[in-house]
Amino acid sequence: MVKVSVLYPYSEGKGFDMGYYCEKHMPMVKEKLGSACKSIAVEQGIAGGAPGAPPTYVAMGHFFCESAEAFQAAFGPHVAEIMADIPNYTPIQPIIQISEVKI
Amino acid sequence: MVKVSVLYPYSEGKGFDMGYYCEKHMPMVKEKLGSACKSIAVEQGIAGGAPGAPPTYVAMGHFFCESAEAFQAAFGPHVAEIMADIPNYTPIQPIIQISEVKI
Repeated sequence: MVKVSVLYPYSEGKGFDMGYYCEKHMPMVKEKLGSACKSIAVEQGIAGGAPGAPPTYVAMGHFFCESAEAFQAAFGPHVAEIMADIPNYTPIQPIIQISEVKI
Repeated sequence: MVKVSVLYPYSEGKGFDMGYYCEKHMPMVKEKLGSACKSIAVEQGIAGGAPGAPPTYVAMGHFFCESAEAFQAAFGPHVAEIMADIPNYTPIQPIIQISEVKI
């Protein structure tokens, strides 16, 4: 199983509409991915490791898929539409990470 | 529910013993946290977003807890012992992120 993570770096003064992300964006992407996406997860950053430090990421969205190839094949045809939705909830440019789930 | 994430940045030439991390370190930390930790997760970074790019993080470990306070109360008494185990599997200094689970 792989986990495709979309990480939104915390950035002073840059907003993130968590309601839109959870209710509109993530369900839309999950629907586009179809059966390639087994489940999704979303977290909102609340703190860093040091006392009073902001979180490294203000938000993180995750897609659990059978393989990186399955994700890419399902994501490719919809990439333009999915990217075009990002400005509806944040001006932050996300980082993508693909990981293998070990535990 | 909060997720405490320990993120190990990818660093050219710096190793990470995933076997030790999954079989020794994470179970040891989970045992020290006791009932404050509901579950754990571990992922190994395999790729970044751009073709051929390395992952941002070579490894990520997560602890799911009822609250940040519950985690801190359980983690505090064992912090020295837990930190002292890190050199047994990597020379990489991790980043800590505390997040609220939304989905």
